[in-house]
Amino acid sequence: MPKPPPGRLGDVLGFEITEFDDERVVGSFEVTDAVRQPFGIVHGGAYAAMAESMASVATYFAVASDGSIAVGQNNDTSFLRPVSEGTVSATATRRHRGRTSWIWDVEFSDGAGRPCALARVTIAVRPNPAG
Amino acid sequence: MPKPPPGRLGDVLGFEITEFDDERVVGSFEVTDAVRQPFGIVHGGAYAAMAESMASVATYFAVASDGSIAVGQNNDTSFLRPVSEGTVSATATRRHRGRTSWIWDVEFSDGAGRPCALARVTIAVRPNPAG
Amino acid sequence: MPKPPPGRLGDVLGFEITEFDDERVVGSFEVTDAVRQPFGIVHGGAYAAMAESMASVATYFAVASDGSIAVGQNNDTSFLRPVSEGTVSATATRRHRGRTSWIWDVEFSDGAGRPCALARVTIAVRPNPAG
Amino acid sequence: MPKPPPGRLGDVLGFEITEFDDERVVGSFEVTDAVRQPFGIVHGGAYAAMAESMASVATYFAVASDGSIAVGQNNDTSFLRPVSEGTVSATATRRHRGRTSWIWDVEFSDGAGRPCALARVTIAVRPNPAG
Repeated sequence: MPKPPPGRLGDVLGFEITEFDDERVVGSFEVTDAVRQPFGIVHGGAYAAMAESMASVATYFAVASDGSIAVGQNNDTSFLRPVSEGTVSATATRRHRGRTSWIWDVEFSDGAGRPCALARVTIAVRPNPAG
Repeated sequence: MPKPPPGRLGDVLGFEITEFDDERVVGSFEVTDAVRQPFGIVHGGAYAAMAESMASVATYFAVASDGSIAVGQNNDTSFLRPVSEGTVSATATRRHRGRTSWIWDVEFSDGAGRPCALARVTIAVRPNPAG
Repeated sequence: MPKPPPGRLGDVLGFEITEFDDERVVGSFEVTDAVRQPFGIVHGGAYAAMAESMASVATYFAVASDGSIAVGQNNDTSFLRPVSEGTVSATATRRHRGRTSWIWDVEFSDGAGRPCALARVTIAVRPNPAG
Repeated sequence: MPKPPPGRLGDVLGFEITEFDDERVVGSFEVTDAVRQPFGIVHGGAYAAMAESMASVATYFAVASDGSIAVGQNNDTSFLRPVSEGTVSATATRRHRGRTSWIWDVEFSDGAGRPCALARVTIAVRPNPAG
């Protein structure tokens, strides 16, 4: 995928998106201090942010050819199990492709394959104001 | 408030929590590249993460004296308006104080005072496994 | 407010909407069997449905004069306390008035004024297909 | 499954749960006036209520043998497509089985198999106060 500019949130938190198309996105991040909260486990916001990145990038590229843009509208993330080290893997699956919104589910698992978070992300699709 | 260890998510993204008690939390972050997504606006995950930090810290300190711990359970954030520069201010208000969960609403506004995001965060309260 | 047709969901469950404008809605329902689940407490779906009705009606009438329609998009309801009898009161407050979506918070309390549920409802605003 | 008492919400709205175990629930409802809103389409609260019923019953029976009870905690339902007649089918799939909460996803489709709503329901699991 196209590289986003360095120094942005996804770069600072170490997010990697390794595959995406208009139905599925795969990514991961390492559990470094940059994604930890004060007690050493992964910060809930890291999962929410990763889910947002994955759903946004896939929707963005899918609707661009129609002259539309993708704008995050809602992010609902549930935390299932604390993770303190290793790699967190994430898979996003598209659940709805509407004219004005797409919905994605994102599942996170730890290095042992245990589920650690679930996110549902709604991305609004709007006409590109640039025409 | 007690300073969390440096280099953690809140530190890396520049979150400041300036006041908190068991009913209300006030904080802010500057719009630097660390909280931006590739197109230069604030990443949705930055709002979700800030809301999570605010609700967690306030619940954590409130329940500690009962020998309980606070664990993030759900974070539902809606994005209202894109912000690309300045300071984002956040106020969290407790909406529910149950035996097993607390619920907080967090409102975000930009430098001109316009609402830019709304979050609802559910924090589970559990007996401290350390006793 | 204009009376909806009899026999519809709000009528069957006994919902009363007593006041509304484009910022606030007030209503209530009696705890009869029609809103109870098998164990005799108010069914979670009754709160969600009442919140949906309140947010929808207020947004619908507010945007009609612009030639727009209101369509429910998301309903997120948290349950705080079981209620088994009496009257449930509900107040909806508008939290966001965007061009394409409105967000409402709805608080429910029992006959003793204790909070029993909290809902956040997102209503999409779209051009009226009828022109 | 055991028949709930007549006249309760699920009965009044015509919900049928035809199969359930601790991982999956199948059900449906007919689009009668009892589930319609004033404009004749299925009320958003009908989907939320059906999802709540499905997740609750399956969790309730699954945890009863451990001496635990199931209590609805959160219901987040997104509406994808209006439905005005026919049968709405619903399938609930368990996504998380934790010690203190279970999470279910519920998909709704119309008579032509088109997705019409998606719900995520969190059920709290607590010790039975009756011992």
